[in-house]
Amino acid sequence: MTTSTPAPRSSTIVLGANNYGKARVRLVKVTRTPGRHHLKDLTVRVALEGDFADAHVTGDQSNVVATDTMKNTIYALAKDHLTGSSEAYGLALASHFLQFPQVSRSTVTIAEHRWTRLSVDGVPSDHAFMRTGDLTRSAVISSTREGAAVDAGIEDLIVMKTTKSAFAGFPRDRFTTLPDTDDRIMATKVTASWRYGRTDLEFDATYEAVTKTILDVFAEHFSPAVQTSIWLMGKAVLERHPSVDQISFAMPNLHHWLVDLSPFGMSNDKEIYVATTEPHGLIEATIQRSSEQGDRPRT
Amino acid sequence: MTTSTPAPRSSTIVLGANNYGKARVRLVKVTRTPGRHHLKDLTVRVALEGDFADAHVTGDQSNVVATDTMKNTIYALAKDHLTGSSEAYGLALASHFLQFPQVSRSTVTIAEHRWTRLSVDGVPSDHAFMRTGDLTRSAVISSTREGAAVDAGIEDLIVMKTTKSAFAGFPRDRFTTLPDTDDRIMATKVTASWRYGRTDLEFDATYEAVTKTILDVFAEHFSPAVQTSIWLMGKAVLERHPSVDQISFAMPNLHHWLVDLSPFGMSNDKEIYVATTEPHGLIEATIQRSSEQGDRPRT
Amino acid sequence: MTTSTPAPRSSTIVLGANNYGKARVRLVKVTRTPGRHHLKDLTVRVALEGDFADAHVTGDQSNVVATDTMKNTIYALAKDHLTGSSEAYGLALASHFLQFPQVSRSTVTIAEHRWTRLSVDGVPSDHAFMRTGDLTRSAVISSTREGAAVDAGIEDLIVMKTTKSAFAGFPRDRFTTLPDTDDRIMATKVTASWRYGRTDLEFDATYEAVTKTILDVFAEHFSPAVQTSIWLMGKAVLERHPSVDQISFAMPNLHHWLVDLSPFGMSNDKEIYVATTEPHGLIEATIQRSSEQGDRPRT
Amino acid sequence: MTTSTPAPRSSTIVLGANNYGKARVRLVKVTRTPGRHHLKDLTVRVALEGDFADAHVTGDQSNVVATDTMKNTIYALAKDHLTGSSEAYGLALASHFLQFPQVSRSTVTIAEHRWTRLSVDGVPSDHAFMRTGDLTRSAVISSTREGAAVDAGIEDLIVMKTTKSAFAGFPRDRFTTLPDTDDRIMATKVTASWRYGRTDLEFDATYEAVTKTILDVFAEHFSPAVQTSIWLMGKAVLERHPSVDQISFAMPNLHHWLVDLSPFGMSNDKEIYVATTEPHGLIEATIQRSSEQGDRPRT
Repeated sequence: MTTSTPAPRSSTIVLGANNYGKARVRLVKVTRTPGRHHLKDLTVRVALEGDFADAHVTGDQSNVVATDTMKNTIYALAKDHLTGSSEAYGLALASHFLQFPQVSRSTVTIAEHRWTRLSVDGVPSDHAFMRTGDLTRSAVISSTREGAAVDAGIEDLIVMKTTKSAFAGFPRDRFTTLPDTDDRIMATKVTASWRYGRTDLEFDATYEAVTKTILDVFAEHFSPAVQTSIWLMGKAVLERHPSVDQISFAMPNLHHWLVDLSPFGMSNDKEIYVATTEPHGLIEATIQRSSEQGDRPRT
Repeated sequence: MTTSTPAPRSSTIVLGANNYGKARVRLVKVTRTPGRHHLKDLTVRVALEGDFADAHVTGDQSNVVATDTMKNTIYALAKDHLTGSSEAYGLALASHFLQFPQVSRSTVTIAEHRWTRLSVDGVPSDHAFMRTGDLTRSAVISSTREGAAVDAGIEDLIVMKTTKSAFAGFPRDRFTTLPDTDDRIMATKVTASWRYGRTDLEFDATYEAVTKTILDVFAEHFSPAVQTSIWLMGKAVLERHPSVDQISFAMPNLHHWLVDLSPFGMSNDKEIYVATTEPHGLIEATIQRSSEQGDRPRT
Repeated sequence: MTTSTPAPRSSTIVLGANNYGKARVRLVKVTRTPGRHHLKDLTVRVALEGDFADAHVTGDQSNVVATDTMKNTIYALAKDHLTGSSEAYGLALASHFLQFPQVSRSTVTIAEHRWTRLSVDGVPSDHAFMRTGDLTRSAVISSTREGAAVDAGIEDLIVMKTTKSAFAGFPRDRFTTLPDTDDRIMATKVTASWRYGRTDLEFDATYEAVTKTILDVFAEHFSPAVQTSIWLMGKAVLERHPSVDQISFAMPNLHHWLVDLSPFGMSNDKEIYVATTEPHGLIEATIQRSSEQGDRPRT
Repeated sequence: MTTSTPAPRSSTIVLGANNYGKARVRLVKVTRTPGRHHLKDLTVRVALEGDFADAHVTGDQSNVVATDTMKNTIYALAKDHLTGSSEAYGLALASHFLQFPQVSRSTVTIAEHRWTRLSVDGVPSDHAFMRTGDLTRSAVISSTREGAAVDAGIEDLIVMKTTKSAFAGFPRDRFTTLPDTDDRIMATKVTASWRYGRTDLEFDATYEAVTKTILDVFAEHFSPAVQTSIWLMGKAVLERHPSVDQISFAMPNLHHWLVDLSPFGMSNDKEIYVATTEPHGLIEATIQRSSEQGDRPRT
């Protein structure tokens, strides 16, 4: 078979893009103030780019900061630097690895698992918490010697509209069987990621504000398609939050189909649905500012 | 090899315990009242026991209610019977299958996925919802011609205490290296299931009340071990909720280990932890009423 | 609301059935013989029952073998006792914990992850392996001072028959829409567990032989229903393997539905299917020997 | 809080990169030749790029090929076009959507689930199969009016070397505690993706040949680091398979740590390990041909 015959071509084989690091480092920090404990629960990943060709090509590891060292650093730096937002901690952590001259880019990815303080008859507990399952907060901090970029995001936020969603007027061909609808359920699991134009923000407050904007628009808008929903949510985020430069969404369309009850002599007026996850539509788009793409210095 | 040699023994091969049904039926019901939609989101399983030996032994399916029929029935009965609690619907559904004379026991298992109504600036939306990730509500309804038993439960409730948890005084042998501790993190994912003594309860209100008791005790108690936590939570449920006859818990001990920062010249006074899921302790126990075990007819 | 009012009943609240232990202990043992390494890859769980009421009710842990000690023991005993089958190791491990007088039953559950030795141009590697994904081998060893029971099993074995499967003659009611079929795809993920009548078997050889019987019958039989498939596979195992006393199966019916291509002017003669996992049928049954149920002492 | 105050900036908000499609379409095709059935089991995703701005910005869906239509097309085209490799089918499918003038790029992503034909006593079954769990075969076909690119790949291939793996000579700083090692276990779950330089290949034969090269090198090489393993595997693929232009790997380092048995008075000479998945190293790199990057016309 010719395909596997070693037929040398007039080319050189070279190392292309590469990075390495430590992933899924699970970190919990408890800050014990008198009468009230505070909890941060993170999954951290560090990835480095730079002068690592020898590690691949010659097997020489003298430039390779061990991923075990990264893990230790994640824990050690949490003591002094995880005192506010995940993004601020990520900036310190990403910056740390730039101390190694062979590192040209240091990227820290953080998933923040949120916890709710328990209350007993209205009195907040000082030390007992429940995991909040509504969404995972994500952050990506990417630092070079020229500056840092900070992205914040949402994962696993499941939302549904039981009306004010339609889908009609799409083209019909031989393989089209879906009828137009002016009133359907729209359900999705939101993944969103937005880039800040600055690195000196109040990240926690901004995060909550952006998330609120996304949920507010989701609740209020009329959706002629998931594409339009993404546009409206993204546009509102950019309009209301000047610190956000762009935002990307990935939203599956988790179809809810009306069950045909007519064989049983029953009607089904938008009442009984089968929820599905497979297959699903998947819509991805970025909303961004146009005029300042080149103007704004990335720090 | 003797193990696979057909060496007939003086025995008859017979069918033992068996059941069959439909699992993972995904059902969403939207009740559209003027100005406010209501949402129920369930995953339903039906399992039947009865006179099904022929289906196995002779291949005759004349007694076998098709699992596809079960699925249809789940949707059809939701229209009229899923108007209140999952448990009430489950009772109607389980009862339905007893209309088939060959069915001796009908078991309906329901996972209820909870949704929170979105609000915009304090105004509740009439039609937009967010999936609540704090826990999954479960129910098992098992009906025979003699009566029905109803179990309600909690799945996937993750909670943590950052203090008021200890583990000490355990026996030490050659393989014991764990030191005693009088202050550790306790984190767990609660699975609980409790049996009601009646089938005419206000299931929704009772569910919230039992869940509140479990969380209240979790927040307030001092835990000398997960075993004791289970006992205290279970005892409180039985004391405060007379409709509950017994309650079972399965609680992993999701260890949080202090990171040794001393190699870096740093202290770690119960501040920086690594969260783990593997391996984990796993503690299971049932708390029940004693005197009435034989009194109350259980069908 | 009456349901949560503390209304004391004339009952005592007591501890019921309980057990505890360590789960998801991941153990890899490499046996390095000259020129050939051997690999065992297990996930182990230990659970103990016995005199542990005080741990719950009074908080006294003096009887509680720490689950951390169990973990250490799992690793330590692997050195000398994990030299053959998982079952033999499990017997040694379960027996070990009976040395504690407060333990009345010790149950060891093992999932064995299988690896295939890589070969290069027909020459087996001495040290390189690929994870075998066809099935997970399971074992449960439950020991008391009276004796031990050994169950072996299969998990995650996915099989399919593209013909020789039917489903017809089932009862039809108001909610039945499924037509009879004399030729359908049958696909399932087999979970099976069988009990050995002895504890001195060649467990590895027997395991392969029983698994072969199950696959052979699956490949060859005509299936009028999943129930019948289970019966035929189970009956064959008991007939061909005298060391097996009973076998239980849980088999989902992973439906493959013919796609309706007629709107596109195309036929579909059992050719194009949509594979589904949700919802699925679920059939569970035990096949056992009858005459010896009471004869053979089961501890 | 200033971060959420609507402070209009002198910018226009615009739609950036976007695509949409249908994901997780589960397709099984049975080809029934006399005496032997053949099975293809795919999960397919289609994503389109093009003139879809109106769908977002104005809500006009007249350009939006419905994802439901995509699903129908996936099934319909399988009848005539899924007769050989997944890649050939993907090329036909991707090309189909370019018939819509608004589509500029059509990307088809396929996961192929492999099945092994069962045999009974050496005789292959004509119709019974077992799912092969060793790896998932992936393919991505991306078509524009200028031509098509075909990537093939591996997912979920878990491999281990019990020796001939080291890691030493890496830099040591304040946070470094890992000792050098000249003999460790290397375990990883390989994700690989390679781009073909042609679209008229015998894709099935080439796939098996490339996979064999990866496994052969994995089995034979000495690994001073995962980075080097990736380089050696990638270089061999490019050397031995002229049809491959570049290959990317993502390989976690699934650490296996020696258990310290010394507290129990036992030695552990590379025998008893704890297998871990969290945290893990993660190494990603692309190996490519250098001289022909710009030369080779992409068809």
